[in-house]
Amino acid sequence: MKIPEILLIESAHRPGSLASILGVIGDEGLVVEHLASLRRDQDKTVWEITLEMDPDAGPRLRERIDALPNARLLGRSDRVFNRHRGGKIRTVSTLDIGSLQILRDVYTPGVARVCLAIRDNPALAAEYTAISRTVAIVTNGTAVLGLGDIGALAGMPVMEGKAALMASLAGLSGVPILVEEKDPKRLVEIIAAIAPSFGAIQLEDIAAPGCFEVEDTLRARLDIPVLHDDQHGTAVVAMAAVRNAGRQAGQRLSRSVVGQVGLGAAGIGIARLLLSRGTPRILGADLDAGARQRFAALGGEPADLARVMAEADIVIATTGVPGLIKPAMVRAGQVILALSNPDPEIEPQAALAAGAAFAADGKSINNVLGFPGLFRGALEAGARRFTDEMLVAAAETIADLASDHDLVPDPLNLAVHDAVTAAVAKAARDSGA
Amino acid sequence: MKIPEILLIESAHRPGSLASILGVIGDEGLVVEHLASLRRDQDKTVWEITLEMDPDAGPRLRERIDALPNARLLGRSDRVFNRHRGGKIRTVSTLDIGSLQILRDVYTPGVARVCLAIRDNPALAAEYTAISRTVAIVTNGTAVLGLGDIGALAGMPVMEGKAALMASLAGLSGVPILVEEKDPKRLVEIIAAIAPSFGAIQLEDIAAPGCFEVEDTLRARLDIPVLHDDQHGTAVVAMAAVRNAGRQAGQRLSRSVVGQVGLGAAGIGIARLLLSRGTPRILGADLDAGARQRFAALGGEPADLARVMAEADIVIATTGVPGLIKPAMVRAGQVILALSNPDPEIEPQAALAAGAAFAADGKSINNVLGFPGLFRGALEAGARRFTDEMLVAAAETIADLASDHDLVPDPLNLAVHDAVTAAVAKAARDSGA
Repeated sequence: MKIPEILLIESAHRPGSLASILGVIGDEGLVVEHLASLRRDQDKTVWEITLEMDPDAGPRLRERIDALPNARLLGRSDRVFNRHRGGKIRTVSTLDIGSLQILRDVYTPGVARVCLAIRDNPALAAEYTAISRTVAIVTNGTAVLGLGDIGALAGMPVMEGKAALMASLAGLSGVPILVEEKDPKRLVEIIAAIAPSFGAIQLEDIAAPGCFEVEDTLRARLDIPVLHDDQHGTAVVAMAAVRNAGRQAGQRLSRSVVGQVGLGAAGIGIARLLLSRGTPRILGADLDAGARQRFAALGGEPADLARVMAEADIVIATTGVPGLIKPAMVRAGQVILALSNPDPEIEPQAALAAGAAFAADGKSINNVLGFPGLFRGALEAGARRFTDEMLVAAAETIADLASDHDLVPDPLNLAVHDAVTAAVAKAARDSGA
Repeated sequence: MKIPEILLIESAHRPGSLASILGVIGDEGLVVEHLASLRRDQDKTVWEITLEMDPDAGPRLRERIDALPNARLLGRSDRVFNRHRGGKIRTVSTLDIGSLQILRDVYTPGVARVCLAIRDNPALAAEYTAISRTVAIVTNGTAVLGLGDIGALAGMPVMEGKAALMASLAGLSGVPILVEEKDPKRLVEIIAAIAPSFGAIQLEDIAAPGCFEVEDTLRARLDIPVLHDDQHGTAVVAMAAVRNAGRQAGQRLSRSVVGQVGLGAAGIGIARLLLSRGTPRILGADLDAGARQRFAALGGEPADLARVMAEADIVIATTGVPGLIKPAMVRAGQVILALSNPDPEIEPQAALAAGAAFAADGKSINNVLGFPGLFRGALEAGARRFTDEMLVAAAETIADLASDHDLVPDPLNLAVHDAVTAAVAKAARDSGA
């Protein structure tokens, strides 16, 4: 699997030095993701070059760079690790507790009044606590990113990242909760027991098929919004991208045959959303019989990979298997979204070369476009659950805000999250969520 | 029970107007806790007067104030509720996620590197996540303040208050966790399952005797510090106060007979700490046989209230029963700390009038002096548990920092929390915690 690798390379101040370094990188089949000069001395510069590569390819690249006359590989940059050092979130007090009287109001004895008011009328908790702006981000670490079952603790950097993004993009308080429990039933019991602490629950990186049972049971049991982001958050952003990809290729979702390759959490979430929006026919391939059954139960048509590729106008791949789709399988005129990160089922260039009308990978299909506004919208509307209407409203808003040649808008544009929030809140109110 | 009551009273600009209002309040047996002028017009002023009173006494006070020639009771102030509105804490990102490259470093794809590093070496989580500065503040709401079993949700304002104080006073991230579970065994299972999310666990407002089982089991099971604040946090601050009270009355703890009235969570915590410090003899009274057994198991000597009052040089009361200690029970020269909040077992003035050498209530014995530094010290030292040595170090530091005529120092003095942190961290290292 490719992971980000940040190299520190020193080059002499000679015309062509940097070009020769980048030439070697390109020659190794690697794309430059980011480049910055870290230090410039009188006769040399230290470059920080971000790639995504298979770690096994490191020694060979190092050898080729060191063999250049004007370059030297100094080592790896700690930039990513430095940005995670000490964690990415913290809890702060919203009040300046600067006097004894403030202390006595916010803590004992004053707080007793607020406690009694909530005991007598639990609805007041929404007004006098932070619960209604707080989202639990819950994982058991069984399907973290594309890394598989790496354990809850190793998933924490992702959970903190989500919390940091919720805070930055939507002003919500995300609280990472790592649960040491793989059994779906016991996982449900634990999450339900602590649910009163939160205004909503984001399930995250929980492996299929357990994730379906966990989400379904919690949605039925709790009266706060619960969303498995890997299903529905990803589906919302993918649906926005599919709509815009279809538009760019002159295909309309409502008249196209959609083919899904991979029916895990993301695949099922996408299928659900497309079917709820009236997509007439969806074929779906997955090696797992349970996955095909769930897909059929939603109204999808199970098929094998070859048939999906042969019949679909729009192909959406979410398998986590790099290179699964061979160029020979691509049909002329197809729209292909190979969404597995970091390595797609087929590189967009290869798909286009094989005749696809449009092709993209999952690099821009980032669920960070969805979850902040989905949760803020649900919480602001006081919704007790997420409805398909809310998810579709988010997807359409995201699609509409992309510029003409993009699939989705800039995820750091706060206006996008405000718009998603407003659309989701309206849909929540309209659908009585 | 007395609760804070904040009255808005308008007075005419005449000499003696305010004095006549305060005269009525004093005449009703109420102490002015805080007074501020909220508005000053040409001929009148609106005063905000904070009292602590039985709600039943309200109508009578109102009548008496309205009967004054130059005053009018306008109603209650919302000051306390306003300070709790929207909650008292929030999660923030410690990074400014202002560019796509930062997003890609802190979230996908960069975060994958950090996840893999932690998977391969779990100890790295202390460095690259916020876990080691995060404390769960866990309650099931069965013994909130002196209010009893008001439920976990109604306890949230207290938990948020603790988190806000942890942030303000010690820079820690407190995370309130409300658990809907009263059975100690199941409560332990739930807390243990989510424990990997946190660097330490503060148990809070869990009723005795379940709290003892919950704490003991978690301490044995988890390798992170666990502290039931109502036992040990309160005990630390109470022990500091007892030491200084004894000093002021010329009594040394190491040569005194201590009498405890009430052997609930706080009482047992205090007994444990005093006995671990070599207090030669502690008598203890409680109506509950289980409480007396726990006390005896620690090395205390169960007795009835009359005997405790007759034999003890230093009396520490933590019963939650206002007025339990009658003036006639007080022995001349006794030191009496009646710590139940908001209403003590005996008013200090009454105890002094009955011959006590020193008397205080629990108003200044605030556990906020203890828990921020206890947790920061434990976390900074990388301690896996709280030891008695750490608790005693905190108590002695708090006692030493009080000025000559106070029992304990100002809880908003950050230097106190820094000193407690340093003392606890040192004790943790010295005791191999």
